[in-house]
Amino acid sequence: MSILLKDVRHKNSRADILIEGNRFKRIALPGKISAAEIPQGTEIVDCSHFAVLPAFYNAHTHAAMTLFRGAADDLPLMKWLSGWIWPMEKRLDAEAVYAGSRLAILEMIKSGTVFFSDMYWFREATIRAAEEMGIRATVGVTFAEGLVDDSELNFEFLRAHYRDYSPRVNLAVMPHSVYTVGEKLFRRCADIAEELDLKLHLHLSETADEAIRSRTPTGGKSPVEYLDSRGILTPRTIAAHAVHLSDLDISILRERGVSVVHCPASNMKLASGSFRAQAVLGAGIRVALGTDGAASNNNLDMREEMKLAALLAKVTSGNPETLPASKVFEMATKNGAEAYGIDAGEIAEGKLADAILVDLENERLVPGSNLISDWVYSADSRAVDSVLCDGNFVMRGGRVENEEEIISSARKAFSRLRSASL
Amino acid sequence: MSILLKDVRHKNSRADILIEGNRFKRIALPGKISAAEIPQGTEIVDCSHFAVLPAFYNAHTHAAMTLFRGAADDLPLMKWLSGWIWPMEKRLDAEAVYAGSRLAILEMIKSGTVFFSDMYWFREATIRAAEEMGIRATVGVTFAEGLVDDSELNFEFLRAHYRDYSPRVNLAVMPHSVYTVGEKLFRRCADIAEELDLKLHLHLSETADEAIRSRTPTGGKSPVEYLDSRGILTPRTIAAHAVHLSDLDISILRERGVSVVHCPASNMKLASGSFRAQAVLGAGIRVALGTDGAASNNNLDMREEMKLAALLAKVTSGNPETLPASKVFEMATKNGAEAYGIDAGEIAEGKLADAILVDLENERLVPGSNLISDWVYSADSRAVDSVLCDGNFVMRGGRVENEEEIISSARKAFSRLRSASL
Repeated sequence: MSILLKDVRHKNSRADILIEGNRFKRIALPGKISAAEIPQGTEIVDCSHFAVLPAFYNAHTHAAMTLFRGAADDLPLMKWLSGWIWPMEKRLDAEAVYAGSRLAILEMIKSGTVFFSDMYWFREATIRAAEEMGIRATVGVTFAEGLVDDSELNFEFLRAHYRDYSPRVNLAVMPHSVYTVGEKLFRRCADIAEELDLKLHLHLSETADEAIRSRTPTGGKSPVEYLDSRGILTPRTIAAHAVHLSDLDISILRERGVSVVHCPASNMKLASGSFRAQAVLGAGIRVALGTDGAASNNNLDMREEMKLAALLAKVTSGNPETLPASKVFEMATKNGAEAYGIDAGEIAEGKLADAILVDLENERLVPGSNLISDWVYSADSRAVDSVLCDGNFVMRGGRVENEEEIISSARKAFSRLRSASL
Repeated sequence: MSILLKDVRHKNSRADILIEGNRFKRIALPGKISAAEIPQGTEIVDCSHFAVLPAFYNAHTHAAMTLFRGAADDLPLMKWLSGWIWPMEKRLDAEAVYAGSRLAILEMIKSGTVFFSDMYWFREATIRAAEEMGIRATVGVTFAEGLVDDSELNFEFLRAHYRDYSPRVNLAVMPHSVYTVGEKLFRRCADIAEELDLKLHLHLSETADEAIRSRTPTGGKSPVEYLDSRGILTPRTIAAHAVHLSDLDISILRERGVSVVHCPASNMKLASGSFRAQAVLGAGIRVALGTDGAASNNNLDMREEMKLAALLAKVTSGNPETLPASKVFEMATKNGAEAYGIDAGEIAEGKLADAILVDLENERLVPGSNLISDWVYSADSRAVDSVLCDGNFVMRGGRVENEEEIISSARKAFSRLRSASL
C-alpha cells in the first residue's frame, strides 16, 4: 500500500511525501515526485490545510489505568496506592485490562501518539489491544515481589513469547522498582534482558522517600548508585521519573548510557518533586517523555506533557530559556523512539512512516509564527486531524474506528470492577 | 427567548434546565418542569449526552496579543518585552487589535470561556469584538506612563463612556503596575475607579525583580505595602500574578479585600516564580484564574490553566492535597465572576445563564468517576460541544459563527504588522 501526502506543510516549506509500505520513501517539493515514482493505486491525500509532524512516543505509562481515571485524586502517593489503586487492581482481570488498554489507545491516537511503553498486569490483553488498533507498543513483563509472586512464570513467558508479535509490538523486562524487587531478582531481570536483547524498564528515584529510604538497606547508596554497583545500568535500561537525582547519580546515568523518561504531570500531581531538567539534559542524557498512568495525570496527552515539561523546567531553574519548545518536542518524539529502538520519530526518507496531520486552520495555530512553538505551547488535541502509524492511517478526520464501542466497553468494565469492590 | 436544556447531567444527577431571557429560571428533575411553565416558542435542546458546567471567567489577559503568539518564546521577561513585544506593539493599530481580539474570543469560546478581563491598547476595538461575538468583557482603560502618554485622554474617556456599553461589557481602570505608573497617577486612577464605581486592575508583584527593585524608591516597602500605604488597595482592586508575596503582603491583601488573579502558565513560562497558592488560599483571599496574554502562555485555555494551577500548587507545596480539583474549578468559574461583579459562575436558579455543554462521550471523560476531576485534569477543549453566554448560544456543536473569516482576518492583520516592522 502507498500513500501520497500532497502539498503538506513540512518544516518551513511545502512538500509532497510518498509513503510506501511502512516507510517514508520520498520527500520532495510539491510536484517534484515524478508520476513514474508513484506506484499504481497510491492513495493521494490533499494536505494543503495540514502540517505533517512526527507523532508522539509515550515512553512510560500504565495504559489500563484509564479505568481508574478520577477515582481518587489529590492524595499523597502511598495513601493513593494503598487506599485506592492497589485494592481496585486486585479485582482486575484480562477483560478489564483489555477494555482499559483500548480506551487508553483511543485517547492516545486522538492526541497524536503512536507508541506507548506499558508497565502493567495482564500484558496479553494490552498486546492484543495494541495489535488490533494498529499502534506500536513495548509491553512489559512486570516484576514486583511485594505485590504478586509470578516471577518464574514471567521468565517462562519471556523465553516463550519474546518474538511472537508483529514488528510493531515488543516485550520488555520491567522490574517495577528498587523497593519492590530484590537484588537477586533484579539481577535475573537484567540477565534475561541481555540474553533476549530486550529493554529493561523501571521506576527510579521517583520520590524523596524512595531516594532516602533505599539508602539504609543498600549501605548508604542512592537507588542509582545501588543499581550501578550491581551492574544493572546499561544502554538498554530506561528509567522512568528520575526526579531525585544527585550530581553523582546524573554522572552515573550518563556514563552507563541509560535513557530517562520524564513524567512531569505525574510528578507534579503526586508532589513527587521537580525533575532536574537543566542538569540532566546538560549532561547529555537521552530524555524521553511519558504521561505515566491516567490515575496520576489524569490523561495520556503528550502535547500537554510537552508544555508541562517546558514550563516546569523554566520555573524550577528560574530561567525561561531552559528547555525551549524545539527541545521538548524532540523529547516527546525522536528521543522516545530512539530509547525504545524504533527507527522513527522524524519525518525523513527511510524512516518508519509514523506521523500526524495537524489542521492549520485551527485557531490556536494562528497566526502561525512558529509551528513547533504553537504545537507545544498553544494547540491541543482538537488540532490533530489524522494519525499515521507504520504507513497506515489509524485516525482520519478526527475519527478512530469503533470509538463508540471502545467507550461503552470501558464503561462496562469499570462498572463491573466497581460493583465487585462494593 | 427561552431555552430548555433537557435531561442534562447536572452535578451528580440529571436535570431539565429552563433559561428565560438571560437567566436560569428553573432547574428541576427531568420532566418536572410543567408545560405551563415553559413559554411558547422555547427551544428544546436534547442534552442526554451532555453535562452542563459553569463556563470560565478569564480574569486577566491581553486578548489581542494572540497576534504575537509564538513570535518570541523561551526568553527572559525584559528581553522578551523590550526586544520583541514592545517593538511589535508600536505598530499596532485599532484594526489589528480588533482582529487579534476576535481571534482571542474565538479561541476562548472554543475552550469554554465567556468572559475576559482585558488590559491592552485600542480598547474600543476589543469592546467592539466582545459586543459582536456575544461574550462578556471588562475592558481596561490602561495607564502606563513609561510607555504612552495618554493619561488625560484616558480620564476623559472613562467619564464619557463608562456606561456606554451593553450589560455584558464594562470598563475598568487599569494602571499597568507600580513600575510603570507613578504615585500621583495611581492615586487618580484609584479615585476615578471609586467615583465611577469601576474595578481597578493591575499587575502586582509579578517578578522577584519587581518585588526587590521597588523597595528602594518606596523606602523599603514591597509593592503591596507601598500601594497600601497610599490607600490604593480596596475590595475593588484586582491584582494579577501576585507571585512574590511576603506573609505581610498576604495579610494586607486579605485585610483590604483585594482579589488576586493567578496566572500559572505565564508565571512558569517566563520563570517569574511559583504562586504561593497554599498561603494565599489559606488566608481566605479570593483567587481567580487568568491565562495572561497569548504571547506568554501561548493559549487562552482556562481548562489547561486549571490543571497547571493545581499541579504547580502541589509540587510547590510538596503536598498533593493542595488545591484539589473542586477548588481550582471554583477559581476558574465562580471566583472570577465574583471578582468582576458578574452575577454568574454557578448553574443555579436566578443566576445569569452562562454555561458550557460538555460531551460525555468524549473518551477523556470515561469511565466518569468524577466529572469535575475529569474536566480539570483529563479533558481538553475537544470535549466542549456548546457554550452559552447571557442566555444565548455563542457556540453549538463545536462551531462558532464566522470562524473562517476571523482566522483569515487575523492572518492578514499579522502579515501587515510584520511587513511594517521589516
